[in-house]
Amino acid sequence: MLYITGHKNPDTDSICSAIVLAHFLDGAPARLGELNPETEFVLKKFGVMEPELIKSAKDKEIILVDHAEKSQSLDDLDDGKLIGIIDHHKIGITTSEPILYIAKPVGSTATVISELYFRGMMEFIGGKNKELKPDLAGLLLSAILSDTILFKSVTTTDIDRELAEKLAEIAGINDIYAYGMEMLKAKSTVGSMDPEEIVNMDYKDFEFNGKKVGIGQVEVIDVSEVEAKKQDIYKALEEKFKEGYDLILFLITDIMKEGSEVLVVGNKEAFEKAFNVKLNNNSIFLDGVMSRKKQVVPPLEKYYMQ
Amino acid sequence: MLYITGHKNPDTDSICSAIVLAHFLDGAPARLGELNPETEFVLKKFGVMEPELIKSAKDKEIILVDHAEKSQSLDDLDDGKLIGIIDHHKIGITTSEPILYIAKPVGSTATVISELYFRGMMEFIGGKNKELKPDLAGLLLSAILSDTILFKSVTTTDIDRELAEKLAEIAGINDIYAYGMEMLKAKSTVGSMDPEEIVNMDYKDFEFNGKKVGIGQVEVIDVSEVEAKKQDIYKALEEKFKEGYDLILFLITDIMKEGSEVLVVGNKEAFEKAFNVKLNNNSIFLDGVMSRKKQVVPPLEKYYMQ
Repeated sequence: MLYITGHKNPDTDSICSAIVLAHFLDGAPARLGELNPETEFVLKKFGVMEPELIKSAKDKEIILVDHAEKSQSLDDLDDGKLIGIIDHHKIGITTSEPILYIAKPVGSTATVISELYFRGMMEFIGGKNKELKPDLAGLLLSAILSDTILFKSVTTTDIDRELAEKLAEIAGINDIYAYGMEMLKAKSTVGSMDPEEIVNMDYKDFEFNGKKVGIGQVEVIDVSEVEAKKQDIYKALEEKFKEGYDLILFLITDIMKEGSEVLVVGNKEAFEKAFNVKLNNNSIFLDGVMSRKKQVVPPLEKYYMQ
Repeated sequence: MLYITGHKNPDTDSICSAIVLAHFLDGAPARLGELNPETEFVLKKFGVMEPELIKSAKDKEIILVDHAEKSQSLDDLDDGKLIGIIDHHKIGITTSEPILYIAKPVGSTATVISELYFRGMMEFIGGKNKELKPDLAGLLLSAILSDTILFKSVTTTDIDRELAEKLAEIAGINDIYAYGMEMLKAKSTVGSMDPEEIVNMDYKDFEFNGKKVGIGQVEVIDVSEVEAKKQDIYKALEEKFKEGYDLILFLITDIMKEGSEVLVVGNKEAFEKAFNVKLNNNSIFLDGVMSRKKQVVPPLEKYYMQ
């Protein structure tokens, strides 16, 4: 049985890309954890069921979407049969056999899947030439808007904007910006969440030169709700740090200000050298930094690989 | 400037895929070493110039074809800007930034490129919708025939056969099998080569769990010419072994018998355990084994990763 799955602590791109790709490949969409409030909002909005929660790769054929990093995937990924990856991140995985790999440096995995669809390329990846219905177009649109933070992230490309418009037309969304703000607000309901939930909502593990590094992120329109919980979030990070980390970063991304406050636990020297900055105690605001993938991971990896 | 390059000790697939892809992407085809007799025959047959020899990635944008393994690429690959990989091997490379990656588990890289062309997908990889002229179709056909050893290798898929026929039509090759035999015979001119040349003609380095493993291969229609030089080839392998290897294998693949005699230097226990066989002194004939990628690398890697 073929399963399509995004990464742990799934975000909207991971969930929506898995659902749409499973539709075209006749596989089952899967998730590795609970949905965040934004993704819940999106699935409800377009009337689509949440994917099945899976905990093991055993006896499964697996296609990964939205990640190419073992530390972000099923713990026993090697016990299953990895047959493909559709992604927009760096290559962080090696295999012992040839597989299907489709990746482009664009704003979201949903962008890659949308382009495959609009160019009539589903057969190239072993899928069927089906029609993209409004509900699934809505999921892909939401994933693009979520991952590019309404086209504000540096990861945004022309093709993200172009395809978002085509998808919006199919999905019947007239005002992309208004819909995007509505969706991001759903994500920003951190007021009712406890610190651990906020930290884990969009949290990814990396391994750089044998060192374990965790990077969490929350994107908010109104930063005051998170600000109020900053001390508690930092405590939750310190607790997590005991699980063998060298460094943990947590980005509180201010969508309106277009920058991120970074909370740093652990190897502060690594952070300061990688970004060439000086921390104010445990944190610093990095103007213009909104993308973990493009602006946070590369300098860190470069530092650790030295 | 954009360069498209295959692997070290280039084979027909590496050279022809680089030339054709460079045509569609408006880049320059490059090679990392001397052409083998088969590839020389192919370029002469279709009247295409050999690619430029390059020795450094510095100040270059690079797209890799037919490999995804640092040990098989430019020594200073990290000094250039790797922007893409088009391949049909296992993933053996990681990156620090997102790149274009198109891979499928098919018989050759030329198959992937041909499918991209026939499905009108060149724009998806940033290329132009140009026409595939007979000379370039001939190169892609030759690469498919070479890598699948005339469709006899276990790596062969239906799509390899299908696309080869379409390419043959454009290239004006009426009898694919007859052309393939003619081409393979050119490769088999090992009679006039010295042992080092035979070993290096199609030789690839791998790193498994920190251990350096080299695997060379020669495919012949008439095995007697190589048989006569076996002692000298083994001596050449022993010489090479001094360069920090844990294990070196050399496959003398008998195209007619559809199997390979494997010469083994170094960690013989690793070889015997990985393949669950007993060596006769330094070698063994493995019936049905013709593909390094699919039948030799995976069991070895599995053994070393234990």
